[in-house]
Amino acid sequence: MAAQTVASTTESTVDLGPATALSCRECGHRVPLGPVFACEECFGPLEIAYDFSAYDTEELRKTIEAGPANIWRYAPLLPVPADVATKPNINPGWTKLVKADNLARELGVTGGLYVKDDSGNPTHSFKDRVVAQAVEAARAFGYTTLSCSSTGNLAGAVGAAAARAGFRSCVFIPHDLEQGKIVMAAIYGGELVGIEGNYDDVNRFCSELIGDPAGEGWGFVNVNLRPYYAEGSKTLAYEICEQLGWRIPDQLVIPIASGSQLTKIDKGLQELIKLGLVEDRPYKIFGAQAEGCSPVSVAYKEGHDVVRPQKPNTIAKSLAIGNPADGPYVLDIARRTGGAVEDVNDEQVVDAIKLLARTEGIFAETAGGVTVGVTKKLIENGLIDPAKTVVVLNTGDGLKTLDAVAGTGLTATIRPNLESFREAGLA
Amino acid sequence: MAAQTVASTTESTVDLGPATALSCRECGHRVPLGPVFACEECFGPLEIAYDFSAYDTEELRKTIEAGPANIWRYAPLLPVPADVATKPNINPGWTKLVKADNLARELGVTGGLYVKDDSGNPTHSFKDRVVAQAVEAARAFGYTTLSCSSTGNLAGAVGAAAARAGFRSCVFIPHDLEQGKIVMAAIYGGELVGIEGNYDDVNRFCSELIGDPAGEGWGFVNVNLRPYYAEGSKTLAYEICEQLGWRIPDQLVIPIASGSQLTKIDKGLQELIKLGLVEDRPYKIFGAQAEGCSPVSVAYKEGHDVVRPQKPNTIAKSLAIGNPADGPYVLDIARRTGGAVEDVNDEQVVDAIKLLARTEGIFAETAGGVTVGVTKKLIENGLIDPAKTVVVLNTGDGLKTLDAVAGTGLTATIRPNLESFREAGLA
Ligand SMILES: Cc1ncc(COP(=O)(O)O)c(C=O)c1O
Ligand SMILES: Cc1ncc(COP(=O)(O)O)c(C=O)c1O
Ligand SMILES: [Zn+2]
Ligand SMILES: [Zn+2]
Repeated sequence: MAAQTVASTTESTVDLGPATALSCRECGHRVPLGPVFACEECFGPLEIAYDFSAYDTEELRKTIEAGPANIWRYAPLLPVPADVATKPNINPGWTKLVKADNLARELGVTGGLYVKDDSGNPTHSFKDRVVAQAVEAARAFGYTTLSCSSTGNLAGAVGAAAARAGFRSCVFIPHDLEQGKIVMAAIYGGELVGIEGNYDDVNRFCSELIGDPAGEGWGFVNVNLRPYYAEGSKTLAYEICEQLGWRIPDQLVIPIASGSQLTKIDKGLQELIKLGLVEDRPYKIFGAQAEGCSPVSVAYKEGHDVVRPQKPNTIAKSLAIGNPADGPYVLDIARRTGGAVEDVNDEQVVDAIKLLARTEGIFAETAGGVTVGVTKKLIENGLIDPAKTVVVLNTGDGLKTLDAVAGTGLTATIRPNLESFREAGLA
Repeated sequence: MAAQTVASTTESTVDLGPATALSCRECGHRVPLGPVFACEECFGPLEIAYDFSAYDTEELRKTIEAGPANIWRYAPLLPVPADVATKPNINPGWTKLVKADNLARELGVTGGLYVKDDSGNPTHSFKDRVVAQAVEAARAFGYTTLSCSSTGNLAGAVGAAAARAGFRSCVFIPHDLEQGKIVMAAIYGGELVGIEGNYDDVNRFCSELIGDPAGEGWGFVNVNLRPYYAEGSKTLAYEICEQLGWRIPDQLVIPIASGSQLTKIDKGLQELIKLGLVEDRPYKIFGAQAEGCSPVSVAYKEGHDVVRPQKPNTIAKSLAIGNPADGPYVLDIARRTGGAVEDVNDEQVVDAIKLLARTEGIFAETAGGVTVGVTKKLIENGLIDPAKTVVVLNTGDGLKTLDAVAGTGLTATIRPNLESFREAGLA
């Protein structure tokens, strides 16, 4: 099936569970489920529309609680067939929500501090969640190749999921990514193409490729499959609430690259409220960026509604999207919920990585350094209330960004005897 | 409390749940629970003795199934207090048992092939399981410092667990380990000491340190806390059987460094049988080593009962123990169950890493390359029956051994346009 950028008007025929149509986030125009991502009326982004009307709240809760220890426990709320758990997929999710009491003590949080640690996913980032959805959409639409533009984590997630689910893969990344991310993306045996340019260049190239015959039969998980893909981030909202005993936390700190994840976590929380699975109570969403790529944070602080693109320059390469597609929605959500968007510099990112490791034994990638660093800053400047619950996302893994903490290593090198041990001042 | 190498004769006073005493594996001599690891009568290794007599099978099964999604669901079968899940610990386990249908097809397995993927643990190796036990023992015995000799994975696991559980840590490793393992071990803020020598030198040095006043108050997880530590590997047996619907698989392929893990998986299976949680049916245990460090495999093939030490030289550094403490027990188990011990060379290890990645989207470290490679070899030489269930352990993570697959990288580098894409032959 050829990739399309605007919707056709035929009926939805694919089985993607409760998903019934695509609906424009801007103008509400509805089109059938298909590999499209932009509204034919206004070019706004398309989102999945669902029919949840048949669900009984307590039965749904029971179904979820009896489900598998991965995102498919939430299959009734996702654009996937009901038997999704039986298909070959990467099955991410149900990662740990770590009660971070040591970190809370250091940051002065008394209301309960939690780290949602997505380094436990199959390829060690939250991207496995979104890719798992895209795989099901690609299957439904008959694609045979999975593709994406990636800042690194997505590349590994697509490579692994494609291998397992039986797709060919061809993935595009900036050529100068971290070694760990390159090897991890390549090891699964798909094509891995380095682009001379930054992520925004890669992304632009992929849009070109979709319009070209060479891209025929390719599902770009974050372009023509984006509406499906993006829904995967809702599972972070679902899991956090379920793990807190079906309760929405007071405050969430979420990293921003394109802004998709933050936007969909908000959507997930709203769905839980509407379904009656959690109490409808106020929550604040905080967005976190690196200073060297802070277009949303800058717009937030300047009170703008539009996001001015930046040329990224930060060690937080996974968040280095200078022209974030969902930036305006992130601004909306931060303002509507009483949150904020903040950024930290690279030194603060490294300090935060070490702080989280030293206090909780969690080795985060730079994106986790960004969220922990921003949390610290927001507590210091009074925007986060330390007397209320805070959930901080660690969306990636420190092993993929070793360079960022390259100074960290051996305390001492000694010969294998007590004398040498004493000489080194270790006794 | 000072470290001791032989048992005192006072009564057990610590609360470590169902654990009642230490018992000598060789002569059966029993001593109270304490930080000792060698029998005062015969210098044999001490193991945990339990009182499981009060358990009702079906109630126990229900308790386990209702327990947390980590190893503490098996707390009634481990040397830990009943309220262990409420204490700060690293909470590993309940990792995925992946039905590996693509790999099965390539290897010709028709009886069901599974990969137990312990890369999903907090520090991405099975070592989190054993360290989590040692933490509880260290707490019970009043230690303030956690230590170990490590081939790399254990170092990270001890660093992380110590940070979270509030211990100081001081960890000893061969100075020339993989970069990923060194950074991961260091990031948690404990002392990390490189030793000029191989693992066996490091291990000897630690035994010296335990006898020295400088080691006072130190819990060496794999020396004076070894009886507790080792029990963590039983949880692999428990999880595999529970995940198979309370059934023992026909064949298991397990890596061997010291041989502790293999020995304890067998112990775990025997316990499940005695407790009535699984049917008592035959199973075969296969041990896997790298050719460059194959003391147990060599002894097995030569029909010896003793294991002649080797000087390791292999890319599978996590398995590079040339003088494996539990080697003779591994030989016993392989022979008793009708299994075998086999080895593969470094090239086969790398091929197996790639095979597993390409078929199942699992990026294993070299130890996983060893088990997958040995599985392939044992199927080829007829020792593994492909018509029966096979469970292969992946005990670590490819991100920690990037050097082993260093040739893996970009397929092509292009400029961000279609022309360059076509020139590279990608269209
Ligand atoms: C580790 C990590 N965290 C967070 C993000 C942010 O994702 P989004 O583009 O949805 O804002 C990314 C994106 O690549 C990522 O790799
Ligand atoms: C990844 C990995 N697998 C397996 C083992 C084997 O452990 P054992 O010493 O219990 O045989 C180790 C030991 O360090 C390891 O790091
Ligand atoms: Zn529209
Ligand atoms: Zn004895």
